[in-house]
Amino acid sequence: MDEAEGMRAAIEACREGMRKGQSPFGSAIQHPQRGLVTAHNSVWLDTDPSAHAEVNAIRKTASLHGSIDLGGAVLYSTCEPCPMCLTAIHWAKIDRVVYGADIADAEAAGFSELRISARSMVEQGGSHLIVEGGVMAAECRRLFDEWKAQSLHRSY
Amino acid sequence: MDEAEGMRAAIEACREGMRKGQSPFGSAIQHPQRGLVTAHNSVWLDTDPSAHAEVNAIRKTASLHGSIDLGGAVLYSTCEPCPMCLTAIHWAKIDRVVYGADIADAEAAGFSELRISARSMVEQGGSHLIVEGGVMAAECRRLFDEWKAQSLHRSY
Repeated sequence: MDEAEGMRAAIEACREGMRKGQSPFGSAIQHPQRGLVTAHNSVWLDTDPSAHAEVNAIRKTASLHGSIDLGGAVLYSTCEPCPMCLTAIHWAKIDRVVYGADIADAEAAGFSELRISARSMVEQGGSHLIVEGGVMAAECRRLFDEWKAQSLHRSY
Repeated sequence: MDEAEGMRAAIEACREGMRKGQSPFGSAIQHPQRGLVTAHNSVWLDTDPSAHAEVNAIRKTASLHGSIDLGGAVLYSTCEPCPMCLTAIHWAKIDRVVYGADIADAEAAGFSELRISARSMVEQGGSHLIVEGGVMAAECRRLFDEWKAQSLHRSY
């Protein structure tokens, strides 16, 4: 599978979430045995501050795989993982994370992000996770505009 | 409620988790309306890399409160929150976090922590969260010894 395919799945998951009134973030995990597992942010739907797209995708994949070790997997995200998600990706032993828009884009959309980049988290924390940003970034940034055009769009 | 009471509740939650074969981490949230809500780590039980004690306590309190905004609450943790949990605490708009043992203690027990302190996360990220460490630290550190004395004790 190429990067564009993974990112397209994350973008589709993001749009699915927006159709349900959720925040504009989508994620997809390509797992060597379990295939492609997608999830969107469901913070409002589940009344759960931790229900970001990446955390949801990890929970779903770990449950499907029957293991907390997702070694060999790649996580795609429409937006740079916040430090919570980045660390969850580290705990899940995922190999690589690929993202589109960045934390500053999410902050500009009204989300109260901790301003620490994914790359900085990995470097400071001593993680083996490989981080790649800016993939299909323009299309991923457009998701925030689609979200703002909705009558109901609440940030947090 | 004083700090010792909150921390004792977190310690009791930790021991409850250990009795179920879980990792040695407990947490308690003192919420102005919902009272004291406790949770232990359930990563193995739920096959969920994100099911740390603090995240579980946040999920439970937010669900009880019917809101993702836990402003006014204090979170007690037997161990310094990892960057995932620290950021989840930030997202939940909790006012203050109080912990006992620290990330280095968890790492010494075999957990593959990202080596970034809670205080550093708050300072770098620009959070309003107040962080207080070292409360009942000796008793909290002892929890790792109790855990290691169990026949089944798996780190991750």
